[in-house]
Amino acid sequence: MITLTSDFGLKDPYVAEMKGIMLSLNLDVKIVDITHQVEQFNIRMGAFMLASAAPYFPKGTVHLAVVDPGVGTERRAIIVQTKNNFFVGPDNGLLILAAEQQSIQHIYQLTNAKFMRPKVSSTFHGRDVFAPAAVYLDMGIAPQEFGPEIFDPIKPDFVSVKKNDNTLVGEVLRIDSFGNIITNINEYQLNPAKKVKVKLPTLSVRLDFGKTYTQASHRRPIALIGSHGFLEVALNQGNAAQRLETKSGDIVEVTLA
Amino acid sequence: MITLTSDFGLKDPYVAEMKGIMLSLNLDVKIVDITHQVEQFNIRMGAFMLASAAPYFPKGTVHLAVVDPGVGTERRAIIVQTKNNFFVGPDNGLLILAAEQQSIQHIYQLTNAKFMRPKVSSTFHGRDVFAPAAVYLDMGIAPQEFGPEIFDPIKPDFVSVKKNDNTLVGEVLRIDSFGNIITNINEYQLNPAKKVKVKLPTLSVRLDFGKTYTQASHRRPIALIGSHGFLEVALNQGNAAQRLETKSGDIVEVTLA
Amino acid sequence: MITLTSDFGLKDPYVAEMKGIMLSLNLDVKIVDITHQVEQFNIRMGAFMLASAAPYFPKGTVHLAVVDPGVGTERRAIIVQTKNNFFVGPDNGLLILAAEQQSIQHIYQLTNAKFMRPKVSSTFHGRDVFAPAAVYLDMGIAPQEFGPEIFDPIKPDFVSVKKNDNTLVGEVLRIDSFGNIITNINEYQLNPAKKVKVKLPTLSVRLDFGKTYTQASHRRPIALIGSHGFLEVALNQGNAAQRLETKSGDIVEVTLA
Repeated sequence: MITLTSDFGLKDPYVAEMKGIMLSLNLDVKIVDITHQVEQFNIRMGAFMLASAAPYFPKGTVHLAVVDPGVGTERRAIIVQTKNNFFVGPDNGLLILAAEQQSIQHIYQLTNAKFMRPKVSSTFHGRDVFAPAAVYLDMGIAPQEFGPEIFDPIKPDFVSVKKNDNTLVGEVLRIDSFGNIITNINEYQLNPAKKVKVKLPTLSVRLDFGKTYTQASHRRPIALIGSHGFLEVALNQGNAAQRLETKSGDIVEVTLA
Repeated sequence: MITLTSDFGLKDPYVAEMKGIMLSLNLDVKIVDITHQVEQFNIRMGAFMLASAAPYFPKGTVHLAVVDPGVGTERRAIIVQTKNNFFVGPDNGLLILAAEQQSIQHIYQLTNAKFMRPKVSSTFHGRDVFAPAAVYLDMGIAPQEFGPEIFDPIKPDFVSVKKNDNTLVGEVLRIDSFGNIITNINEYQLNPAKKVKVKLPTLSVRLDFGKTYTQASHRRPIALIGSHGFLEVALNQGNAAQRLETKSGDIVEVTLA
Repeated sequence: MITLTSDFGLKDPYVAEMKGIMLSLNLDVKIVDITHQVEQFNIRMGAFMLASAAPYFPKGTVHLAVVDPGVGTERRAIIVQTKNNFFVGPDNGLLILAAEQQSIQHIYQLTNAKFMRPKVSSTFHGRDVFAPAAVYLDMGIAPQEFGPEIFDPIKPDFVSVKKNDNTLVGEVLRIDSFGNIITNINEYQLNPAKKVKVKLPTLSVRLDFGKTYTQASHRRPIALIGSHGFLEVALNQGNAAQRLETKSGDIVEVTLA
């Protein structure tokens, strides 16, 4: 099986062209979309989407991801081999977060033209380089056939969580389409607490720490551990990010109360 | 086969996580999206989407739907067994409209943890409770294995159509993305008429009753029976809802002229 | 395999209804979406989407497309047979551009009610006429079974490229979601050039002619041959169409410098 993640959107025919190529190489390939609505050129958001969804897919899945502002430049195309899966895409940090969750074993540069389309467009490697590579991997071609092993992939520079006394300092990973503010502070870092003080760029607020969105008082934000195991700030049936004027990348400080 | 309906949108990885779980349990499962763009928390709109599309799917389809503002609370998770199909989702009215079209036989509460993911997030039952249940049903597990039968599902209170002399009083079910105003008055309630008087909150208007959008005079609304058998008010290549300032839920009165 | 292209969007249940019908007729049919976000009633945009994606799909694919402002009128429903594929949809120009790329062999009018749903809605031929036809073609029914051969399909009148001395006069085919301005001037018409003068309705500008988006100077537009072989004007990580106030259909004049 192959999953697809990109910033191509669903309006243009780009995603369909990739699927057409894949199905032309193997009519039986199974393709599942993760999302094609990563914000354009936002590698960080793409990395988190992929890292959120990839753990739920079966062993042997090939994850193909394309958020690729450097397409056609010297940036490398890579295959990351983990314990159970492959990740295929540009060497710009997009794949590493998801791959590291699954224990990286080898990384290969994708250079062998035999596994690319005969004519490679310099603006659409998703179709001409990555899509064929994903299919060949899915069909069982060994990753070392695609090119030389490399040891210096680009690593994304997402802020790690720091601890100062009682305060955890992290960042807002992303805002989901419900307006939930998802941070990079996880359930193991945050000891059980009834209340937390959350400091965002625009305000500081004491919040109840709950289990479900509906435990929030009317029109009051609530803190909880979301479905991926990270601290979220949410508003019951409302948009917390809008209300608290918070965006992806904002620094967040959490003090246990 | 399993269909999916939700208010998750296509930007976040939530739908992909559900699909990953389903494919992990059965690599051969066939999944078809109905829509993931139900307005957030709008159970009524979700119910109509599901009821519109479900009749066209083959016997034996499992319809999984998640519009679930009460996730993590005491609201029950249910399986509705109809003559030919199953419906899986929250007990909040979302499933009943579609299920009633197909003659409900039994309703079971989904309580057996054996058919859930080992760790159930309190904010994402779509992934941890409903998705596995749908796959196990699709694989042939009997519905009574999932929990006790119940007899008091939540019924949606969508307004039914009333008749006063010559006038039918119903409501606007939804506005589709073409701007067509779709009412809950069906083709059997509305005897053949050449003209109808339609009263909406903002205005009263006499309309020709046609068969196709193109029969409308230039920039004039037209009444017709739409593709699901309900009265629609439409504008040829225009947006009737915008022009007539009408929204989902508005009361509509129709008098045969 | 069957591909789907339409202006139905992903919010309404219309696309799902088509898929339900197709799967009811053949549970093993493989369906791939090209796009459902063609601008409503924009036949020209639909034609280009289909013509962009269709060449990448395998031999034997049935391409079903519905952008159909004339649904329910006298406009014909057609099947276009090309060397390797079929195209199914309304006779309004939507299919011809893509079909001509693959060498049209015969065109049949779709009149045989045996291959339609028993009750055909006059507003939704996508579900009731085209979807069943596509499945029957995919299952091997000969195209001449569906109705009489015709020889006068509607041809789209998209402007062709003209040459005056050094100047090519074409038009903007479409703006993609990255804001790239895609013209109908192809790589064979445009001899290798280092610089080009591009005249758009709002301005005239001398541009570098490059190979990749990243070769553009900071915040300067660049001309290049895009992934479908057509001249594009792009802005590196920016929206060229917004900056140059250009829209689909605009006349573009290109002079080699």
